[in-house]
Amino acid sequence: MDKQKRFFLTENEIPTRWYNIVADMKNKPLPMLNPKTKKPITLDEMTVIFNRACSEQELNTTDAWIEIPEEVRELYKNYRSTPLVRAYGLEKALDTPAHIYFKNESVSPIGSHKLNSALAQAYYCKKEGVTNITTETGAGQWGTALSYAAKAFGLELAVYMVKVSYHQKPYRRSIMQTFGAQVIASPSMSTRAGKDILTVNPNYQGSLGTAISEAVELATQTPNCKYVLGSVLNHVTLHQTVIGLEAEKQMEMAGEYPDVVIGCFGGGSNFGGISFPFMRHNLLEGKNIEFLAAEPASCPKLTRGIFQYDFGDEAGYTPMMPMFTLGHDFQPAHIHAGGLRYHGAGTIVSQLLKDGLMKGVDIPQLESFKAATLFAQTEGIIPAPESAHAIATAIREANKAKEEGKQKNILFCLSGHGLIDMTAYDQYNAGDLTNYELPDEVIKANVDKLEKLI
Amino acid sequence: MDKQKRFFLTENEIPTRWYNIVADMKNKPLPMLNPKTKKPITLDEMTVIFNRACSEQELNTTDAWIEIPEEVRELYKNYRSTPLVRAYGLEKALDTPAHIYFKNESVSPIGSHKLNSALAQAYYCKKEGVTNITTETGAGQWGTALSYAAKAFGLELAVYMVKVSYHQKPYRRSIMQTFGAQVIASPSMSTRAGKDILTVNPNYQGSLGTAISEAVELATQTPNCKYVLGSVLNHVTLHQTVIGLEAEKQMEMAGEYPDVVIGCFGGGSNFGGISFPFMRHNLLEGKNIEFLAAEPASCPKLTRGIFQYDFGDEAGYTPMMPMFTLGHDFQPAHIHAGGLRYHGAGTIVSQLLKDGLMKGVDIPQLESFKAATLFAQTEGIIPAPESAHAIATAIREANKAKEEGKQKNILFCLSGHGLIDMTAYDQYNAGDLTNYELPDEVIKANVDKLEKLI
Repeated sequence: MDKQKRFFLTENEIPTRWYNIVADMKNKPLPMLNPKTKKPITLDEMTVIFNRACSEQELNTTDAWIEIPEEVRELYKNYRSTPLVRAYGLEKALDTPAHIYFKNESVSPIGSHKLNSALAQAYYCKKEGVTNITTETGAGQWGTALSYAAKAFGLELAVYMVKVSYHQKPYRRSIMQTFGAQVIASPSMSTRAGKDILTVNPNYQGSLGTAISEAVELATQTPNCKYVLGSVLNHVTLHQTVIGLEAEKQMEMAGEYPDVVIGCFGGGSNFGGISFPFMRHNLLEGKNIEFLAAEPASCPKLTRGIFQYDFGDEAGYTPMMPMFTLGHDFQPAHIHAGGLRYHGAGTIVSQLLKDGLMKGVDIPQLESFKAATLFAQTEGIIPAPESAHAIATAIREANKAKEEGKQKNILFCLSGHGLIDMTAYDQYNAGDLTNYELPDEVIKANVDKLEKLI
Repeated sequence: MDKQKRFFLTENEIPTRWYNIVADMKNKPLPMLNPKTKKPITLDEMTVIFNRACSEQELNTTDAWIEIPEEVRELYKNYRSTPLVRAYGLEKALDTPAHIYFKNESVSPIGSHKLNSALAQAYYCKKEGVTNITTETGAGQWGTALSYAAKAFGLELAVYMVKVSYHQKPYRRSIMQTFGAQVIASPSMSTRAGKDILTVNPNYQGSLGTAISEAVELATQTPNCKYVLGSVLNHVTLHQTVIGLEAEKQMEMAGEYPDVVIGCFGGGSNFGGISFPFMRHNLLEGKNIEFLAAEPASCPKLTRGIFQYDFGDEAGYTPMMPMFTLGHDFQPAHIHAGGLRYHGAGTIVSQLLKDGLMKGVDIPQLESFKAATLFAQTEGIIPAPESAHAIATAIREANKAKEEGKQKNILFCLSGHGLIDMTAYDQYNAGDLTNYELPDEVIKANVDKLEKLI
């Protein structure tokens, strides 16, 4: 009974500032560009779509620490600190000398880390007099988080949900509606972008690209309305650093320090959230912590993509971003980790990867579900299919430690639970899931199309 | 920022003993009877079906404190203490002078309080050399908890899941399977009881009574196999007292003490779990805390049932128990709070109710969902339809405090989350749910049939 399993911070110890890693990077990320002028995006251009505070954060390359507004911290207290957990059950099953820790973001009321940024963005919108916000959602984790955040700050929210998800994930839709959000299956007849598609193809089941177009269009054409995004951008990752900042204090409570830090990787906000506060010590103090971003083998922008200016969305409405990318019209296989099916990496992570400060790891779908099942059976928590990629990477590291006979401290972020993704587990249990091979030619054909700005 | 919202215990402060209220009751519950002999059930009779340790706990009327085995406490540490939360958001929305606290059992990895007893029962079975266990499950909360507990202690588990739920709640089935349990739709061809029903009525969609019969039959006919139950019985409620024991320490941390303690009521284990540790002070020190058991208006055994010996199951296989009951073949309306659709109350609660030491409150279905939605929007957590009855009762008490202009401390148990029950919310949001009127004549006709032993 002397082994402590879970570590919490008191409410007074919850971080009061987010960490902006850009300020400490020797090589700053290249700027986002206006696709028309090919010049760096300005603050004024950003605020057409986003609120001002987040736009400023997005472009801030000098301040390492950004104050978390008191109103946001007050709502963080509803679920933060999230526990840091020593995974004794998993360690035992692996018979590894490694110590495995995970930061459990799945205990957030909406079931994932997404709330950390949703609350911040909703707060800033409210403070600037915005009354309505819009967003898109694929699998629904982000839309769920923003629905609660919008309600908490008294904002009206319209969520464009990819039509195929709208029908396949009715629970997510229903949670958003219970929090009071308008949820519209995209493409819809409520926007020009949606109408244009539906008149040509009435049965089109939607894509994230189309949903973004609809959400942005509604935001720009509605008074007092801003658009809000759930990953990829710098300010979203900034808000997620509360994860790693807490984890660092909690690792201290555990009397240990991570040798390797792992996060699954879609747009980068959960990976950056757990990693950047630790990476700070590599940048400033020459520490030698290893950072692993776990992506699906079927969507391997970090391990097999190229570094290139590209659009953030399929349709090409966003600024051009310097990113590791598979090309903005890359169509990832229909794996269950919907949150990782994104063609590119955010600008910060892309620069860090380029500079060798972190590594990508690609995990085949079957390995991710095998890891998830072992984790469920040993730790009692059904992980989200996305988080399963981080677990699989942690297991690889723990097995490596065993082979090498080395003690090693492994920390990963459990970004969410999978209770609403059980159809995926059903298919895995029934042997109906597969890996997806991705030939080099497919990637090459996709990225060769990209316009070369650098 | 000075208002603390959530209160946790350190792992050293997690209770080491459960509280057995029977030892402190002046009027002990009447004994369970063997239906054939009409004599009190003996320990040997109980151990035919249940493990010995739980059978002893079931019949223990003298020891107020029962040691929690170290192995069980070790697994409690995976999720306990659960937070005690001050519901500032709900208080503000109600504009009430009352202070509302809830004990959040929904953060257990399987999403409800059920794990507290599942881990204990699986442990005792393992310790006694049992290799296989069986149980039944309706909505699936109990089956989910036991599936993880069985895996944690290396037991094989067969769960008979009511067929209609098996098909309507595939996520629950899938979670059980991911934890490694065998899940069988009941009625099935795997037992005599199931075969007998299916040969007569091949399309029968099952009932809890049939599922119990199948689980008990399999347990008695399998070597080293015991049957395990998730509510109603004394030893199950005993294990749940860890909830109230923690809550009492946490209320102390908050510097307050509850004036009223509320739990939703199905078989009684969650209500007893939160209440009994506080009720102890009424029994021993003449305190005057109020205890409210929140039941559905459509299944009102506490408020409209009679106190009578009755069977625990529909088919009449169990011992006869002295209980407030609507009759063992009472067919509750198909409300979404499946865990509260049970005809009787456990023997302890029945005696306490008879002696005026607690009260029943009946909540119509629409009021429960209205309360649940307000709670979701103000506290960010989607409650289970069962727990919504406790929330509705807490809201009634908070409104009463407002009318009377009195400060009052309200504590309720949030027994589980509703993330896997979103179809219920969908129907509520669409205006498709109704209340169910239950005429006196229906209840009278049902209970008049009961054999009068007392």
